[in-house]
Amino acid sequence: MNIAILGYGTVGSGVKEIIDHAVTKSTKQLHVSYILIRKGKAKTLPYMCDDIRTILQDTSVDIIVETMGGLEPAHTYILQALKSGKHVVTANKAVIAAYLKEFTDVAREHNVRIYYEASTGGGIPWIEGLAKAMRIDEVDRIHGIFNGTSNYILDHMQRYHASFEDILKEAQELGYAEADPSADIDGYDICNKLRISASLAYDYHVPDTFPVFGIRNITKQDVSYFSSLGYAVRLIAKTRRNANRYGCVVEPVLFEAGSLESNTQDNYNLITLHGKTIGDLKFFGQGAGKLPTANAIVQDLIDLNEGVCHMDPSFTNTMSYDETLCLRDYILRADEAARDELQDFSYEVKSFEGQEYLHIQKAEVYEMHQVMERMLKTDVHAFMASIYEREDD
Amino acid sequence: MNIAILGYGTVGSGVKEIIDHAVTKSTKQLHVSYILIRKGKAKTLPYMCDDIRTILQDTSVDIIVETMGGLEPAHTYILQALKSGKHVVTANKAVIAAYLKEFTDVAREHNVRIYYEASTGGGIPWIEGLAKAMRIDEVDRIHGIFNGTSNYILDHMQRYHASFEDILKEAQELGYAEADPSADIDGYDICNKLRISASLAYDYHVPDTFPVFGIRNITKQDVSYFSSLGYAVRLIAKTRRNANRYGCVVEPVLFEAGSLESNTQDNYNLITLHGKTIGDLKFFGQGAGKLPTANAIVQDLIDLNEGVCHMDPSFTNTMSYDETLCLRDYILRADEAARDELQDFSYEVKSFEGQEYLHIQKAEVYEMHQVMERMLKTDVHAFMASIYEREDD
Repeated sequence: MNIAILGYGTVGSGVKEIIDHAVTKSTKQLHVSYILIRKGKAKTLPYMCDDIRTILQDTSVDIIVETMGGLEPAHTYILQALKSGKHVVTANKAVIAAYLKEFTDVAREHNVRIYYEASTGGGIPWIEGLAKAMRIDEVDRIHGIFNGTSNYILDHMQRYHASFEDILKEAQELGYAEADPSADIDGYDICNKLRISASLAYDYHVPDTFPVFGIRNITKQDVSYFSSLGYAVRLIAKTRRNANRYGCVVEPVLFEAGSLESNTQDNYNLITLHGKTIGDLKFFGQGAGKLPTANAIVQDLIDLNEGVCHMDPSFTNTMSYDETLCLRDYILRADEAARDELQDFSYEVKSFEGQEYLHIQKAEVYEMHQVMERMLKTDVHAFMASIYEREDD
Repeated sequence: MNIAILGYGTVGSGVKEIIDHAVTKSTKQLHVSYILIRKGKAKTLPYMCDDIRTILQDTSVDIIVETMGGLEPAHTYILQALKSGKHVVTANKAVIAAYLKEFTDVAREHNVRIYYEASTGGGIPWIEGLAKAMRIDEVDRIHGIFNGTSNYILDHMQRYHASFEDILKEAQELGYAEADPSADIDGYDICNKLRISASLAYDYHVPDTFPVFGIRNITKQDVSYFSSLGYAVRLIAKTRRNANRYGCVVEPVLFEAGSLESNTQDNYNLITLHGKTIGDLKFFGQGAGKLPTANAIVQDLIDLNEGVCHMDPSFTNTMSYDETLCLRDYILRADEAARDELQDFSYEVKSFEGQEYLHIQKAEVYEMHQVMERMLKTDVHAFMASIYEREDD
């Protein structure tokens, strides 16, 4: 198999490293014939090029590995590759979340395939695990820690009694968090991964209109308060379905101290699916990083080389977003002025003498996020987390 | 695909239930055409029969699902099925551990396949996960909670400060433990699962001669003592390799309170593999039970129907068991008389005033198990557990 790698950053060079140091029969059959680098960059390897057309026109190239990230030109290049009869493998969650249906349609038309195991859960065989479960069960619930950076921050804040700012800085120094950490801490990275997972589970291209609340406002005191109640907080993406209705949300969630989520440390990911016959299945591993992500890409390359078919969704199901599908208990911190937003609130709100936290019972997730949005206009530091409740089978 | 199910106990009836209530395209293509029951039992369904020859001679039967358990007649029936040109799917860990190489050779000769995902880790896609990781990495370490019954006992002893006897009785009443619990609590069930996992990882049919020490002797006081040191105890199967040398062991292991193993509750399983590029991957789920185990069998049936190939080991590697490959710290409880066995012991032994526990540093696993065997002749209640130490990558 002749492979062209688009982009030669962390993940792209990881793919080349695994192929160069192939130790198995499967990996020895892979061959990198092009690396696309940006115009003007030094060509440090003989097969580097800076013009996508060279790669697209070379009929000996079987697979394009896209590791550039972002929407454009990734979107255009992927479409061009598929239309040129080349398979595509990508780790790019943003482009897959946005164009999943278009890519799948175009690939089918041109009798090629697009695989994206690395886009969600990094090195964890999550998309394959989901696809496999769906061969027998309707997967009706998914929830998980899909983002290593936010998990590192929350885990270390709790274990080392530290502030958000201090741990974020530490994570940036270690290379776990980017200079602009917004995508990780505001939940938008996770949002893409949830869209991909839910779209596959429901065979319906889920729009990005579900509620997302991140961890930017969490304080050392919040974490201590949650600990005192026996909880650890994790940034969670969650979806559930009931027939053709579904709900999706990204928000901080409180888990009991003895749960696997509470004990998922550092920058690890933990993703759970539920099906009627299989029950709960959980997958744990490195959700990012050079070699784990490259490993997932190389797994896709091997599948293409060995003719292993992944699930073949058409995204033609009819599903509707149901605001009322999820009811949760929440713990909320907001100042007095912001609390006015709760006056017309129909749920039970408990406040405690001298305590800045409110406990809200069985609130609709969607409504809760709307209230929070209004509160943030008054108290820009407000924070909330829902309480995880194991649903019955 | 026409399927004959041998045995109609918990797992066999679970397979039929999933196929009867098929909700997916993949499961709707499966058809049960025979169920083999014991001679003399009432034929409650029209396609029940009590003569294996009827099934073997029917050329319309594509796959035999063996759910009888035990070595014979399972071993003979599986061989006959393969030689009749029928694929075999089984959940029978004892027969697979013992005859893995013979079955694989005979299947290859007759151009059929034998799949056994359900034999190890129940509903967890463990064998597939291992096979997939091995396409890129040499898997050099595996450890896991492979037995739900022993995990239920250890977890509940700790969480409810209860005795081994009380929790065993509770587990028996709930149907989690059998009337004769030896296979689960003495580690022999796990031993089979470790043999299967290690044999696949090393492409070498691992013999059953490695050390095995179970949890029969654990007391409420032991669990309290381990807790006081910050540990939870789990019955663990572990293997590691270094080039062509390997080690295997089944024994109680102490994990830090914040580890996933310590927080694997009830009768769940948690299995970990390690590879150079993928790092640690962990799989969590139901390791036994009617529908999860049946789910794994039906996954194998779908793979056979859809032409999905599993790994194809030849078990022709040359490996040698290395007694010195694993060094561990141990905590040991034995009476004064039994402690005499430690006199010629070459490792550092720390004892504490008024304390019946000894701490042993960096002992060879194999030697430690031999010493324990001798101690048990003097103190039949002696117990030991090793301390988990995360190895460097």
